[in-house]
Amino acid sequence: MHAANLPAPTPQDVLDAAQRLQGMVHRTPVLRSGMADRLLGAQVHFKCESLQRTGSFKFRGACNALALLEPEARERGALTFSAGNHAQAIALAGRLHDAPTLVLMPEDGSASKMAAARQYGAQVVTYDRQREDREALALQLAEQRGMTLIPPSEHPHVIAGQGTAALELLQEVPRLDYLFVPVGGGGLLSGSLLAAQALGAQCEIHGVEPETANDAQQSLRAGHIVRIDNPRTIADGAQANALGPLTFDIIRQHAEGILTASDLQLMQALRFMAERMKIVVEPTGALGFAGAQHGGVDIRGKRVGIVISGGNVDLPRYARFLAD
Amino acid sequence: MHAANLPAPTPQDVLDAAQRLQGMVHRTPVLRSGMADRLLGAQVHFKCESLQRTGSFKFRGACNALALLEPEARERGALTFSAGNHAQAIALAGRLHDAPTLVLMPEDGSASKMAAARQYGAQVVTYDRQREDREALALQLAEQRGMTLIPPSEHPHVIAGQGTAALELLQEVPRLDYLFVPVGGGGLLSGSLLAAQALGAQCEIHGVEPETANDAQQSLRAGHIVRIDNPRTIADGAQANALGPLTFDIIRQHAEGILTASDLQLMQALRFMAERMKIVVEPTGALGFAGAQHGGVDIRGKRVGIVISGGNVDLPRYARFLAD
Repeated sequence: MHAANLPAPTPQDVLDAAQRLQGMVHRTPVLRSGMADRLLGAQVHFKCESLQRTGSFKFRGACNALALLEPEARERGALTFSAGNHAQAIALAGRLHDAPTLVLMPEDGSASKMAAARQYGAQVVTYDRQREDREALALQLAEQRGMTLIPPSEHPHVIAGQGTAALELLQEVPRLDYLFVPVGGGGLLSGSLLAAQALGAQCEIHGVEPETANDAQQSLRAGHIVRIDNPRTIADGAQANALGPLTFDIIRQHAEGILTASDLQLMQALRFMAERMKIVVEPTGALGFAGAQHGGVDIRGKRVGIVISGGNVDLPRYARFLAD
Repeated sequence: MHAANLPAPTPQDVLDAAQRLQGMVHRTPVLRSGMADRLLGAQVHFKCESLQRTGSFKFRGACNALALLEPEARERGALTFSAGNHAQAIALAGRLHDAPTLVLMPEDGSASKMAAARQYGAQVVTYDRQREDREALALQLAEQRGMTLIPPSEHPHVIAGQGTAALELLQEVPRLDYLFVPVGGGGLLSGSLLAAQALGAQCEIHGVEPETANDAQQSLRAGHIVRIDNPRTIADGAQANALGPLTFDIIRQHAEGILTASDLQLMQALRFMAERMKIVVEPTGALGFAGAQHGGVDIRGKRVGIVISGGNVDLPRYARFLAD
């Protein structure tokens, strides 16, 4: 089975996913901070997907996709490629749905992330980043083993699942004027846009990318998907090379725009969130905050939502960010 | 006015404080963690007062005490002595109640904590830890300026306010078998015990102290208040020398017991909470977790509550804890 055979996700799919995921995903808290309000000159509401199971929003999409597999396909299992959060998400979602899982990870990737994926129950297969094409390898393995490929972003069930984070935020905090959402592969932003539509929310939604990995921003400007290979940024979760047809289409139609943030801005946001808000956020997770602060959108006096996408960062690396 | 003139706090006082504080304190989230459940072999519910305004539960007690001042006394203001969390709590509570505040802090204390207290609007007066008695100095200043002294723990309105954290937890998660609460001056534990009584909760409540600062444990054993001067522990929020008559009395009557945790255990708990739960916790805030894990109480298969008391720790120091 391949995602290409499935119809594009709709706002209703996000509502259905929210129903389906109840009791399985954490309803993550929406935090307030007087310090953040003063810093941004706005009333800011943080949706903390860093406190989601497996440490990121990715668990929502993975869980929704696993739940929607036919029983027979579920028995054969799910497979994905991911250096990070989506791998852990698929691994735990598989365990909860009694489905075997396999994740393709780069052999030079984070040992702790491989360990986490294994701990959650996935088989980890490594590949050589320089010589092998992970997507081709994934398709080949999927065929050999009869497993279903669930890519990190470009899949309607994944997108619908990711949208449930913004759905919860928009339901809990009505009448948000702005929402800032990190963009890697675009699944979280696409899902958030569908969620806002589902609720008829009059909320301007901006994606935020690292400035060196602004392929989505360039894609919107060009009117077609632009690739950026191996971008350098501390935001390792937003290094996806390009949007896919599904995410590009939704983002192009419904997003207000795409902002960017520098590594220095991400680092400052990450430190602010540790020092003032007492939460551990990974660099990618700080994109929404940095975009709201520095992206040039006039949010003064407004009601602002910020999605913190994840908190998975190796402790020694995190300690260096804080100490610098 | 002096706390000695006020009656001891009752379970009803905690219920009243909860009403009074609504909209002023954060209703902090109760977090779950599959990793923590596996580590402790129990179903664990974390009440995150690290996510409270000013970064600790202290804001609850300070706010309740300020709210209960007569208008005239409030106009003259409140004064306290504290090297840390209570100072910030009084400072912000004063600002919200239009009351001037003054905090006595040791001149060799944390510069960032002094800055935080000033930022929230308090006047900071420093004293020499070696040569001056802060309580005598506080009483003298209170008399000179007509300000009301609100000590960090030994005050019925403070104790009632602190109890609202456990009250929220016990209301949100019914039928807890155990609750583990950090002990410094004993205000949080006393309030928690009153909260459980107010709800008729059949929950065994344990205090947890640093093993080098186990004055409350020794006091319960001796049957009278035992002092420990200048205990050495990384848990700087639990270095209070001794319980007071109010807290000792409540704890002696109602606590199941007092456990201890070593600095190493606190450090490990703090790292676990950063790595797995994505929250920044100060060493004192990790006492409940460390006590539940290592305190020798058989919690296997039980429903366990843990109060995380605060998250105020200077970033460079915190970075060292994580990197070690």
